[in-house]
Amino acid sequence: MNRNNRLLVEVTVVGEDRKGVVADVTNFIFKNDGNIEQINQNVISGLFGMQLEASFQQHDFKKAIFDSELKTLAKKLKMEVKIHYQESKRLKNIAIFVSKEIHCLAKLLDAKTSGELDANIVVIVGSENTTRSIADKYNIPFYHIVHSQQTDAENEILDVLDCYNVDLIVLGRYMRILTPNFVWRYPDRIINIHPSLLPAFPGAYAYVQAYERGAKIIGCTAHFVTEDLDQGPIICQESFRVRQADTVESIKRRGQKLEAVTLLEAVTLYLENRIQVNWGRVVIKDRK
Amino acid sequence: MNRNNRLLVEVTVVGEDRKGVVADVTNFIFKNDGNIEQINQNVISGLFGMQLEASFQQHDFKKAIFDSELKTLAKKLKMEVKIHYQESKRLKNIAIFVSKEIHCLAKLLDAKTSGELDANIVVIVGSENTTRSIADKYNIPFYHIVHSQQTDAENEILDVLDCYNVDLIVLGRYMRILTPNFVWRYPDRIINIHPSLLPAFPGAYAYVQAYERGAKIIGCTAHFVTEDLDQGPIICQESFRVRQADTVESIKRRGQKLEAVTLLEAVTLYLENRIQVNWGRVVIKDRK
Amino acid sequence: MNRNNRLLVEVTVVGEDRKGVVADVTNFIFKNDGNIEQINQNVISGLFGMQLEASFQQHDFKKAIFDSELKTLAKKLKMEVKIHYQESKRLKNIAIFVSKEIHCLAKLLDAKTSGELDANIVVIVGSENTTRSIADKYNIPFYHIVHSQQTDAENEILDVLDCYNVDLIVLGRYMRILTPNFVWRYPDRIINIHPSLLPAFPGAYAYVQAYERGAKIIGCTAHFVTEDLDQGPIICQESFRVRQADTVESIKRRGQKLEAVTLLEAVTLYLENRIQVNWGRVVIKDRK
Amino acid sequence: MNRNNRLLVEVTVVGEDRKGVVADVTNFIFKNDGNIEQINQNVISGLFGMQLEASFQQHDFKKAIFDSELKTLAKKLKMEVKIHYQESKRLKNIAIFVSKEIHCLAKLLDAKTSGELDANIVVIVGSENTTRSIADKYNIPFYHIVHSQQTDAENEILDVLDCYNVDLIVLGRYMRILTPNFVWRYPDRIINIHPSLLPAFPGAYAYVQAYERGAKIIGCTAHFVTEDLDQGPIICQESFRVRQADTVESIKRRGQKLEAVTLLEAVTLYLENRIQVNWGRVVIKDRK
Repeated sequence: MNRNNRLLVEVTVVGEDRKGVVADVTNFIFKNDGNIEQINQNVISGLFGMQLEASFQQHDFKKAIFDSELKTLAKKLKMEVKIHYQESKRLKNIAIFVSKEIHCLAKLLDAKTSGELDANIVVIVGSENTTRSIADKYNIPFYHIVHSQQTDAENEILDVLDCYNVDLIVLGRYMRILTPNFVWRYPDRIINIHPSLLPAFPGAYAYVQAYERGAKIIGCTAHFVTEDLDQGPIICQESFRVRQADTVESIKRRGQKLEAVTLLEAVTLYLENRIQVNWGRVVIKDRK
Repeated sequence: MNRNNRLLVEVTVVGEDRKGVVADVTNFIFKNDGNIEQINQNVISGLFGMQLEASFQQHDFKKAIFDSELKTLAKKLKMEVKIHYQESKRLKNIAIFVSKEIHCLAKLLDAKTSGELDANIVVIVGSENTTRSIADKYNIPFYHIVHSQQTDAENEILDVLDCYNVDLIVLGRYMRILTPNFVWRYPDRIINIHPSLLPAFPGAYAYVQAYERGAKIIGCTAHFVTEDLDQGPIICQESFRVRQADTVESIKRRGQKLEAVTLLEAVTLYLENRIQVNWGRVVIKDRK
Repeated sequence: MNRNNRLLVEVTVVGEDRKGVVADVTNFIFKNDGNIEQINQNVISGLFGMQLEASFQQHDFKKAIFDSELKTLAKKLKMEVKIHYQESKRLKNIAIFVSKEIHCLAKLLDAKTSGELDANIVVIVGSENTTRSIADKYNIPFYHIVHSQQTDAENEILDVLDCYNVDLIVLGRYMRILTPNFVWRYPDRIINIHPSLLPAFPGAYAYVQAYERGAKIIGCTAHFVTEDLDQGPIICQESFRVRQADTVESIKRRGQKLEAVTLLEAVTLYLENRIQVNWGRVVIKDRK
Repeated sequence: MNRNNRLLVEVTVVGEDRKGVVADVTNFIFKNDGNIEQINQNVISGLFGMQLEASFQQHDFKKAIFDSELKTLAKKLKMEVKIHYQESKRLKNIAIFVSKEIHCLAKLLDAKTSGELDANIVVIVGSENTTRSIADKYNIPFYHIVHSQQTDAENEILDVLDCYNVDLIVLGRYMRILTPNFVWRYPDRIINIHPSLLPAFPGAYAYVQAYERGAKIIGCTAHFVTEDLDQGPIICQESFRVRQADTVESIKRRGQKLEAVTLLEAVTLYLENRIQVNWGRVVIKDRK
């Protein structure tokens, strides 16, 4: 089997758990002459999620028919299905999620302006309204989406993302926990920046905790988001040394600069197709 | 599809991680007209493990051919493959693993003698030699297997288990941590008893920790063993109330009695085919 | 030394960390002929907190002078000092903290009405305004105190508590995390109810987590509040057995009933002076 | 009060928990005109431990009398008492604890030979016998102490340490967990090296875990040992960047070099009196 002429297709299936979904979807892949390269399923609180990566012979594969038939199957199974092709030709579409802090957003917008970031920033989603003016300045659509129930917010956001045909979601200090219902639809396509050298100091107060614990080396971590909070595959990490004179405030200041740099680094690796995720571990491929 | 006339086959594939194993094995199932009902894969430290449950039309299925062809495929893939049929007719074969403590072993042997335990206890494996005399008394083969490397011990044990065609492994205070290489070959077929109401007090000193923490309700948990220590699906739990006069010793004494009862309860549920594992949660089916 | 004729005084000292506070306060106790029975200090984020229990000969002890001199010392040290005498004669004053859920509040008010609860409920503090009507019905002052910064809320609450001379704070599903600055002023005098058998399932979603984990025995824990979230000394625990038909909702319903009962049980033990805290472990003394 | 003319004395009290010890010891300090600068007590499994730091007027203080009277008090209380004076004049006496790995031991011995380490290495304690030849080469007494019960080993070791008047214990990959009974006698005087950037990856398999987790920055931590495993005050940390070609073995190799350097760094800081422990956080003072 020549792997080079093969087309990689990612399929996500999310919906209320019921019998037979795995069999029906894998059978569908087989009948379309696909090979299942990786497959994962999970159920949390009655929600079923399956992600599979299948490869097909490039010349045999009829995309339109595959898409339409898979959607028919999904309707029959009462599941929501998303298909994602890894096409390298067109520019990727990025959505940035933010709350109040702007250092990460500003860095990504700067990198876009300077040409360093080779992608379209197509939409900004804010849990607060405060960054709208920045979005306006760059002529990027801004959506202030906040609900008392995070699942309501997520449903609204999913609709927005569909409108803008988003490939990659970048959490630039979004400060909200995404539920499996959201995360399972974008496997290895949501990048978060966390203000610590994970797995140290997960959670909401990383710098304070690191300072309190007396850590001498502090850093930040860009990682893919999975259903396990702060436990997704690590893409890159950067660190700095704590000085005796440092306070929580000075650490936070130094850390935020590094967050922006590290997040941009991870996004760039993603856009260059250099990130490979093997069972939860990231391998960075050399630049071609 | 009539599920009642279908044969359920569990297949485990363990070996050095390499590309294409998922595709080759799932294709094999498909070409034999099987439906994949559940599938899980994992890689830890370069070790690949896949467990799948497939269903076949009873009357079409040629067991001997399926077994032989799957073994040929395994050889080609350099993977070790185990096939497990859920036949309900013959008595199940149980292996009991022990260390020094005998309360669980004694309870299971008593239950066998009295007819309460409807299975064969075909072999006892001890990390210590001290329970050999009990095994002798009951005319059950005893193997004292201990190595400085746990993986060496496990390889020796795997050979023993094959000789005795073991269906179920019961850890009656075995006190050793089984590696993925062992555990992945017996998915949901290793039952352990842990001396706490998990997830409280995992680890080796559960009663001491519970006493120190001032817990007022203490208990024990019978659970399936997975690659995550003390985190497998919970089968049953029992508890008792701490009295003011209790010491660590009296708690341990009361706890051990409960351990034996709870472990027997879990084994009985297994033998009655009443345990269903859905995504890490156990559902106990009613007695027919 | 005759311990029976001795007066037990609890002193808390909270303020910005500075050198010499331990020496000055312990010297003060010594010069007043006190014996230090227990003493704890801690510093978190530059906040110093010390709690000590000292005993004095009853007939020698001049309360008014001791109070006034200690306050002078506190002013000199720029520390806030609270003195608490364990007088058994007068009825204790209880403050109840609530959010939206009313099952615990209702149980305590019922117990007061029926005479089961032998104390005054002097004030109710709500992080939501929804329970005001209940407070009004019972003619109990209600304060709706909520700020974006929890420390601001706490400062306002501390003033309220001083007005009502509160002995015991009962958190009836208050759902807010109290900071050390608050907690250190009421050592072993804040009782919380947590919806799990701690240390299992700490945090905000205990029933959901217990259900997801497949726990077969679920319960709740009344405990003293310390600066470590959900880790204070356990006063009492109650449990129930999960039935196959249980859902998250039915578990929550059954759990809430038990929460109210368990919290009332703990408050009653406190009022009967039957709780003794020895180094983080609670010992329940027999009824006299 | 002039702090510069004051003598700092550290007192540890360890023994079976009983009433009144805190009062008796603090009263003793006061009656000798001491100021209590810091005081901590704890009870674990019925073992009481108290550490206090008291300051005395240099010219008033009668060392011999203080020592002898405190020992009399200890005998009365049935407690074991240790007194430690921070004398800066004489060279400090170091004990090194090892198991099989020699990289840390070798580094410290080299540093002693080269004059970099300004202290006496007075004794080496091994849980294995394999490093005896190295000790012999350097003419340093070697004790191979191992028991099935760690507490038995510790009692034997405590006697050895007393013989050699040890000031500082350095754990150069000792691989045993010291119990409170041992640790409480050497507060902030036992330095360990842990092969991770704590609090990430505590426990016995830090490099394997870091590799498995896909950490991109890995390091090691020198810290004081307390009764909480791997949670003592952090003295110094060093890190390196994981390369794509790294395996668990190459990471371990690179890590071990860094362990030796970091441990020596921490010991040097200790000998230079530059480490100040404030409530669990280390502050490194500038070189005078």
